[in-house]
Amino acid sequence: MSAQQADLILTGRYLLPMDDNQSVIEHGGVAVAGDSILAVGKADELLARYPEAEVVAEPMGLIMPGLINVHTHAAMSLFRGMADDLPLMQWLQDHIFPAEATLTGEQVYQGTLLSLCEMIKSGTTTFCDMYLFAGEVARAASEAGMRAWIGEVLYDFPSPNYGELENGFAYVQELLDRYRNHPLISITLDPHAVYSCSPALLTRLGDLARAEGALYVIHLAENEEEVRTCRQRYGRTPVEHLESLGLLGPHVAAAHCVMLTNAEIALLAARGVNVAHCPESNLKLASGIAPVVDMLAAGIAVGIGTDGSASNNDVDMFGEMNTTAKIHKVDRLDPTAMNAATTLHAATMGGAKVLGAEHLIGSLAPGKKADCIVLDLDQPHLTPIYHPVSHLVYAARGGDVIHSVINGRVVMRERQLLTLDEPAILARAAEIGAGFRQSRNGG
Amino acid sequence: MSAQQADLILTGRYLLPMDDNQSVIEHGGVAVAGDSILAVGKADELLARYPEAEVVAEPMGLIMPGLINVHTHAAMSLFRGMADDLPLMQWLQDHIFPAEATLTGEQVYQGTLLSLCEMIKSGTTTFCDMYLFAGEVARAASEAGMRAWIGEVLYDFPSPNYGELENGFAYVQELLDRYRNHPLISITLDPHAVYSCSPALLTRLGDLARAEGALYVIHLAENEEEVRTCRQRYGRTPVEHLESLGLLGPHVAAAHCVMLTNAEIALLAARGVNVAHCPESNLKLASGIAPVVDMLAAGIAVGIGTDGSASNNDVDMFGEMNTTAKIHKVDRLDPTAMNAATTLHAATMGGAKVLGAEHLIGSLAPGKKADCIVLDLDQPHLTPIYHPVSHLVYAARGGDVIHSVINGRVVMRERQLLTLDEPAILARAAEIGAGFRQSRNGG
Repeated sequence: MSAQQADLILTGRYLLPMDDNQSVIEHGGVAVAGDSILAVGKADELLARYPEAEVVAEPMGLIMPGLINVHTHAAMSLFRGMADDLPLMQWLQDHIFPAEATLTGEQVYQGTLLSLCEMIKSGTTTFCDMYLFAGEVARAASEAGMRAWIGEVLYDFPSPNYGELENGFAYVQELLDRYRNHPLISITLDPHAVYSCSPALLTRLGDLARAEGALYVIHLAENEEEVRTCRQRYGRTPVEHLESLGLLGPHVAAAHCVMLTNAEIALLAARGVNVAHCPESNLKLASGIAPVVDMLAAGIAVGIGTDGSASNNDVDMFGEMNTTAKIHKVDRLDPTAMNAATTLHAATMGGAKVLGAEHLIGSLAPGKKADCIVLDLDQPHLTPIYHPVSHLVYAARGGDVIHSVINGRVVMRERQLLTLDEPAILARAAEIGAGFRQSRNGG
Repeated sequence: MSAQQADLILTGRYLLPMDDNQSVIEHGGVAVAGDSILAVGKADELLARYPEAEVVAEPMGLIMPGLINVHTHAAMSLFRGMADDLPLMQWLQDHIFPAEATLTGEQVYQGTLLSLCEMIKSGTTTFCDMYLFAGEVARAASEAGMRAWIGEVLYDFPSPNYGELENGFAYVQELLDRYRNHPLISITLDPHAVYSCSPALLTRLGDLARAEGALYVIHLAENEEEVRTCRQRYGRTPVEHLESLGLLGPHVAAAHCVMLTNAEIALLAARGVNVAHCPESNLKLASGIAPVVDMLAAGIAVGIGTDGSASNNDVDMFGEMNTTAKIHKVDRLDPTAMNAATTLHAATMGGAKVLGAEHLIGSLAPGKKADCIVLDLDQPHLTPIYHPVSHLVYAARGGDVIHSVINGRVVMRERQLLTLDEPAILARAAEIGAGFRQSRNGG
């Protein structure tokens, strides 16, 4: 008998550990000790084994790993609904870029806090973020007790954060050093895209990523215009361009990958590149539908991301799963494509694989980090229950999540955020939004 | 000065009357007298004009017309998640038809009550239903205080409800007579589809619809197989078939209309046929994406429907709006297609037009029926606010609706259902589901 005691036991009607057997444990539970999972199994056995643990019992609850949002720009919550239904370039050049040009670190911090409220309240326990003022993003995530992969976006032109590019490298190095052994935050290397970064910049960041053992996050093959621009400039597609630079590898998290040929899918698979699928953003910006079914068949690990709230307009991974499962069916005119189990896997274990963290998160197993959520199934839209996995993908919503635990710490209980001051964050975000509105109106 | 007094005033941060000017009234309100809207305008003016009215004030609320779900099979909530991700014919023949073959009126009543809980809790105040045991659907809707257009589905083969077809006509006639002057319920004539109904049946129901001034509701051009079958049998497409029978007209609510040629769109427009667009069901069953942008350009009135919960898997119109606005953008590779305002119009005034009820519902104006909902905007995913219409389509969820008024009666307050016993309904639905599960398992 192990003498180890559990600090916390969560029990519920169903437990989905997201293991390889696609187990569904009825009347299951998970025991947590410190930041890690101690045991997973039948609730009554765990309660008997660890009598001193604090217990959170939800007779109609469903316990599962927290969702992993593999691509977002959290602070863009501040631009949610500022401009919709526009051609991509008009949207970027007339609305998003001007708004970002005057963005401050404090605003990024507040916008990230706003997204963190929304993420935790909709079941996300890990996110991968690419944005300006990444240090402020990391500060917000750290304060919230959120697990995160965070990168400062670099491109050839001056940044509203660091100014000239050389300063950007200094900024990134400082982030790498500061968060090297942080329990929750990992720093990533983030070239914006092949059309906004020179080959020299792409390569320098690639070298740094390899040296640091860090993730290399890039927007890749997002839409037709990116492919056309890249072909004109380099005579190659974006994927071919990265390959020619020797940059493709298992440390690459490529966001979007909408415009891929079969040969490019095979190449990404051969190089072990992982993909962040962002279906709602791809739909809203009319980019296209990424060939996820073919990527999965080729063995590529695919996670799901919401992209920023300016092109979605939320960071709710339940909505993103619902969309993911449906659009691939119609895209292939095949109702068996991208079934519920495959979709849920992408939002959990698939995401963990994209982040190179499948040994830490994405499923509930002894020794893994204790990142899990509890949904309340006792609701009209989740009644009756035949297959819990079906409900999670096709019927559940972010608002059904009632408790959230990250790294062993309860960050939400009964939908009350315990690590974030939600009313203050909403008030400050509304103020910032009012300021943007006024300056856009020339006021 | 009118001496008329208001019974109820709702006030909120924003009021969207859904009028022709796309007005957004800040600090607005709506005054209700009996079953109708007395006045719409600035909150302080209404409060001064009608000092005796009961007031529901939501400083961060958004008031708008209730959503109109123009095509559903409410009782199919009982089959939610029973079978997903299957080819259409396998789904129907191995799962849905066997389950429906033994369905009872009591089960339809309970399943409808379950959907009514979900509909009211997600902002729907009117639905149009086609199913078996329509009398039980009408009973449930009437008890809930819900506005509804309800029809008994007829087809060539015997029905689990009425048996032989001739009994079906007697059943429908009795419904027509019973609900002729009901304040909330209208009876529709519902041939299932061109492949399941003989020309004689289609025509007889068409004659009855014209004689009764009733809506003629039919699944039309839902998928490729329907078109192929119809061509093989009659040498015509489904739309051509109905035209050849003289059945197309402004009293027709055609559900789906995924497979339409440009000539058919022009014909439907010329005949004044209205369309119920069900995007999530069309995606999930891999039917295709209906050419809604072209239909609207041709002048066809388009409403939005969820279809049944077995192919969606919910009846949440906010999710359906989100999907509607996004899929047409990617389908046409045009981010300006199906913008937020057009989508919200389809879910309100468009739906009213489909039901032939644009004089009664779909917008908030004096003299119209008092069907309205209030959303709570004070939430992370709805902060900050630039354009309320954007949030309603791209960020809001059914769970954001806090109050609902139908026909002047408050049916939900602070998310508590006032006309339905939610715990009892959920318990009964779970029991019925457990019974289905057991019989499917051969138990």
